[in-house]
Amino acid sequence: MTPRTNDTIEISERSGTAFRLSKGDRLIVIDPRGEQVADLLAFNAEDLDEVISSGRTLDYAETIYLTAGHKLYSNRSNVLLTIEEDTVGRHDFLLTPCSTATFDHFYPTLPRHRGCFGNLAAALEPYGIAPDRIPVAFNCFMNVPVDGETGKLRVLPPISKAGDRIVFRAERDLVIGLTACSAPDSNGGTFKPIHYRIEPAG
Amino acid sequence: MTPRTNDTIEISERSGTAFRLSKGDRLIVIDPRGEQVADLLAFNAEDLDEVISSGRTLDYAETIYLTAGHKLYSNRSNVLLTIEEDTVGRHDFLLTPCSTATFDHFYPTLPRHRGCFGNLAAALEPYGIAPDRIPVAFNCFMNVPVDGETGKLRVLPPISKAGDRIVFRAERDLVIGLTACSAPDSNGGTFKPIHYRIEPAG
Repeated sequence: MTPRTNDTIEISERSGTAFRLSKGDRLIVIDPRGEQVADLLAFNAEDLDEVISSGRTLDYAETIYLTAGHKLYSNRSNVLLTIEEDTVGRHDFLLTPCSTATFDHFYPTLPRHRGCFGNLAAALEPYGIAPDRIPVAFNCFMNVPVDGETGKLRVLPPISKAGDRIVFRAERDLVIGLTACSAPDSNGGTFKPIHYRIEPAG
Repeated sequence: MTPRTNDTIEISERSGTAFRLSKGDRLIVIDPRGEQVADLLAFNAEDLDEVISSGRTLDYAETIYLTAGHKLYSNRSNVLLTIEEDTVGRHDFLLTPCSTATFDHFYPTLPRHRGCFGNLAAALEPYGIAPDRIPVAFNCFMNVPVDGETGKLRVLPPISKAGDRIVFRAERDLVIGLTACSAPDSNGGTFKPIHYRIEPAG
């Protein structure tokens, strides 16, 4: 469950995975075909009650659009991940992973799907992380523009192209959850895989 | 700890409280002097692992600016509170409560303060709610405009005037946390009380 090589690993469409990342490791998340979203969660491996926090991170970054140089903070105001590289520049940190309930809400005529929420819950269960502990995810490549006047938000296809990537450095030992998103609106109506690679610290 | 009258209760400056709200009760949060913020949390009283979720709520509302008619959803996609009235129209649901760490970050020359986070943690402790369970709060009257082009957010003084209010209806039995905010930027550099009143269901 903890890939330690430089091999590229595929998360197949509408699925998810979890793995450990050691302090100093780099996690490269790649959109292999373009216009696909990967929901990312990070928990402190030494104390799973510490988890990435959109509210802390947006407060410190003073922007809703995070990119290279920004840090992802925990609910205890510690840095869990630093964004080192980003070939896209548009990701979302406002919305929670899609779930059965969001499918019922947004896609009532489509077959139900457990979504990224269900995929993350299943992948994180072996680590002892309960579904209720899943917060707002850092949604790599997700394109959620906000109208500054009205506040209205829209979920548009990502602007990522095939091969685009975002690179994170682990600032602590972490448990990571990562998906290839299951919601039609997030990726322009298609379902595609996500690739990732871990570059070990030393 | 559970006021059951129609009396108006004052939360003194830079403090917080917690209380139960029964299904159908109305909670009226009042800014008695204008330009003050009240961080609000809501937990399902029957199962404290269920809590308001900014990510679910913003997803369903499709806007970052919530007002009368909007519902505050939980991490399980259930409605915990409905906003029935709102004389202001500008509140924040992006940022976590201010804390010792945020004071160190934003106000390094000011005396440290435990902030709304510390006040909420202390008020919720008798209910068995741990500090790590505090998510993004619904920040009544907090004015956090976002630039739609750049994503930059700013914390500006509230647009609320003396006597302005927001009214919530409880859709479940809840434990509520509520503060009079402690952070200078949130309220234009002054610290003021918050008033609230509970109108029981029947």
